[in-house]
Amino acid sequence: MNLKGSIKSPAFQNLIIGIIILDSIILGALTFSFLKNNSILIAIDRICLLFFCIEMCVKILVLRKEFFLSKWNLFDLFVVVLSALPTTIIGNIAILRLFRVLRAARLSSSVPQLRFVIAVITRSIPSVVSIGVLLLLVYYIYAVLGTQLFATAAPEYFGDLGKSFFTLFQVMTGESWSGAIARPIMRIYPYAWIYFISYMIIVSFIVLNMVIGVIVDSISEIKAQKLERDNKDV
Amino acid sequence: MNLKGSIKSPAFQNLIIGIIILDSIILGALTFSFLKNNSILIAIDRICLLFFCIEMCVKILVLRKEFFLSKWNLFDLFVVVLSALPTTIIGNIAILRLFRVLRAARLSSSVPQLRFVIAVITRSIPSVVSIGVLLLLVYYIYAVLGTQLFATAAPEYFGDLGKSFFTLFQVMTGESWSGAIARPIMRIYPYAWIYFISYMIIVSFIVLNMVIGVIVDSISEIKAQKLERDNKDV
Amino acid sequence: MNLKGSIKSPAFQNLIIGIIILDSIILGALTFSFLKNNSILIAIDRICLLFFCIEMCVKILVLRKEFFLSKWNLFDLFVVVLSALPTTIIGNIAILRLFRVLRAARLSSSVPQLRFVIAVITRSIPSVVSIGVLLLLVYYIYAVLGTQLFATAAPEYFGDLGKSFFTLFQVMTGESWSGAIARPIMRIYPYAWIYFISYMIIVSFIVLNMVIGVIVDSISEIKAQKLERDNKDV
Amino acid sequence: MNLKGSIKSPAFQNLIIGIIILDSIILGALTFSFLKNNSILIAIDRICLLFFCIEMCVKILVLRKEFFLSKWNLFDLFVVVLSALPTTIIGNIAILRLFRVLRAARLSSSVPQLRFVIAVITRSIPSVVSIGVLLLLVYYIYAVLGTQLFATAAPEYFGDLGKSFFTLFQVMTGESWSGAIARPIMRIYPYAWIYFISYMIIVSFIVLNMVIGVIVDSISEIKAQKLERDNKDV
Repeated sequence: MNLKGSIKSPAFQNLIIGIIILDSIILGALTFSFLKNNSILIAIDRICLLFFCIEMCVKILVLRKEFFLSKWNLFDLFVVVLSALPTTIIGNIAILRLFRVLRAARLSSSVPQLRFVIAVITRSIPSVVSIGVLLLLVYYIYAVLGTQLFATAAPEYFGDLGKSFFTLFQVMTGESWSGAIARPIMRIYPYAWIYFISYMIIVSFIVLNMVIGVIVDSISEIKAQKLERDNKDV
Repeated sequence: MNLKGSIKSPAFQNLIIGIIILDSIILGALTFSFLKNNSILIAIDRICLLFFCIEMCVKILVLRKEFFLSKWNLFDLFVVVLSALPTTIIGNIAILRLFRVLRAARLSSSVPQLRFVIAVITRSIPSVVSIGVLLLLVYYIYAVLGTQLFATAAPEYFGDLGKSFFTLFQVMTGESWSGAIARPIMRIYPYAWIYFISYMIIVSFIVLNMVIGVIVDSISEIKAQKLERDNKDV
Repeated sequence: MNLKGSIKSPAFQNLIIGIIILDSIILGALTFSFLKNNSILIAIDRICLLFFCIEMCVKILVLRKEFFLSKWNLFDLFVVVLSALPTTIIGNIAILRLFRVLRAARLSSSVPQLRFVIAVITRSIPSVVSIGVLLLLVYYIYAVLGTQLFATAAPEYFGDLGKSFFTLFQVMTGESWSGAIARPIMRIYPYAWIYFISYMIIVSFIVLNMVIGVIVDSISEIKAQKLERDNKDV
Repeated sequence: MNLKGSIKSPAFQNLIIGIIILDSIILGALTFSFLKNNSILIAIDRICLLFFCIEMCVKILVLRKEFFLSKWNLFDLFVVVLSALPTTIIGNIAILRLFRVLRAARLSSSVPQLRFVIAVITRSIPSVVSIGVLLLLVYYIYAVLGTQLFATAAPEYFGDLGKSFFTLFQVMTGESWSGAIARPIMRIYPYAWIYFISYMIIVSFIVLNMVIGVIVDSISEIKAQKLERDNKDV
């Protein structure tokens, strides 16, 4: 019980946060070519990782089943285990580095305010799912259409289904959709504007409704919370 | 009555959804050059189409008039008929392919959640129509103006009314409006910025009001629904 | 009294709307090079203009003072007078053409629904003015700064105050702000990112607050209207 | 007491606003190469600065402690002192010019309406802070990842941590993210799309929640104000 308390104590929490920040800064510093092989930084990074491993072990031993009930703990465990995997198992060093920087993401599970923000944000995801499926359907139909129509005219953009998916994502963000993609294709197929403009209007209309869904949900949720609070007051 | 029930049974609905998904995946797979002439895939696609034709016939025979009262059924019928049209009638194979992939769009009329989402989205369209006409009017005036002013200076962008329409759509999305379109024209007509900046401000202001219209409508609709529910409760 | 009634009658209104639409289509058709000198179209355009002149005269004679009390009538008069100005007075034909296409804009003052939409949109302008002045102030400070700092490094973009204004408008829309403008300047002044990123963050924050202002205003206005209606009911 | 009143009198305030506007226009005019060395303009600018210095001295002498209690006064003092610093102390003339144009920003602290707008805008900042930290965390992780992965493939964009930060800001605004950055990298690392698309989706989702946070806050604040007013009325 004593140990449980000390694990959840603000002092211990702040120590962990401090070490995560320190480690994150070191991981950033190690990207500079003149610091890449700095043995001191690498040593501190190793010590940080060691600390995280010990932290995980202690938490599991003390909290036991309780540990695995929290999604945040599972996320921490997942990140630390990935970081600690020896190079011999993974083989590819570049991929290991990827896992290493995820340790900075532990900040989001350790700082209470960030946890709260993430909880708020993720709560709005379900209301987006069904409209997101519709978006994917439109996306898929246009990708198949684009590949069939423009594969020979613009192999770089619509060469296969994968390229079409990426190109349509780019068109959705509006980047160079006309100058680099639509206009050259329209020189070959003058009616290609129907494809692009219908896609942009449909997608932006769906995305708009998605955004409105999130707005409406968060407004109504805040009202529900207020109502609850008011009822408690009365 | 028994048949009607089995047509509307979840099992039958799920079977149709499954076959639509299967067919959609096959249509996607057929876009890859090494699978284009895969006879197995083409055969499955044909069987799916056959299934859809039978499905339509059965539904019409069983539901009769009722069938034609639902917009979703009419949409399904339209898509299936278009897909089933023999190549000899249409002649152009590329166009037939277009119709073929629309079968994936049947997913939106078969999955209840997607139907609901589409119903919600389309309900917000009427509130946008009158402001959309205003947008079209501004769009038209600027297109005529642009063609008159810049047809010789930038024939690629303002060569004729059609090109001006496309260019103004591109300017509305903000893509390369300055670097590729406005700046080269301004080298010939230094005051062309009045045309472009006034267009961008007016259009973005109208579009903003359009978006707000949709937001306000969906918020007030949700409130109306709540009020109705509350009244029922009381 | 009889004449007043017939001027405001739906039949007369629809006639005017019809002629505006006809004239707008002709003005669009005249932009095509093969129709530019089509004498029939030009004749119809002249007849339309003549009709508008007569319409104005009749309206002024019948409505008298009342005519000048409506902003829509003044707008109509302004457009028709500009269109009817003989070429000898203006001299420049291209400019006259500009005025000519404005006749299509009369549609917005003749169709009641469009009038309503414009009234709604313009009502949201005052709430934007004071925040718009702040935006202009930031815009001005950055334009002066940009000209002082980058006039020699990027004469095309920051050569003088006018060019800086246009460039900053372009940066605000996000078009090629980095690839074409910021990155080349950063090769000379590595700290130029402070200028661009601070500008983008400040401006997008102000614009966001402007948009929110419009949203909040239109929502509260709708509520006020409802409250009024409810009070009338009671 | 008499002096205090005259400092806060509308006449004195308007005089200051007038001189700030005059000075701002002169600072703008001085950016034109043919006016750069215009001795009259420079003289007026000096006189304006002298006026501001005297204004500050008078205000401090009259208001005493009260002067330093207002953030707006401190901002004014800060700007005037920076502007008045002799060239001999700073040395670099270009930097001094920067401070000079900030005097135009004094308009925002002198015009009451602008003060109000700024107060409203800044009130929405705290509600953005915690979600902003999350954004910075994501931003940092992607910057470290990007530098590790693409430093050799795209040294211009991901050469070091600083370049990665700038590139990711550019990607966030959507400018040339695909055509200039993602596609060339994908020619070397075909799976780089995972990096870019995951970044864009996560960042736009966080930014969306940030915007919604600001909207919800300002709506609820307006409601709170109304409630307060209503309570006063009762």
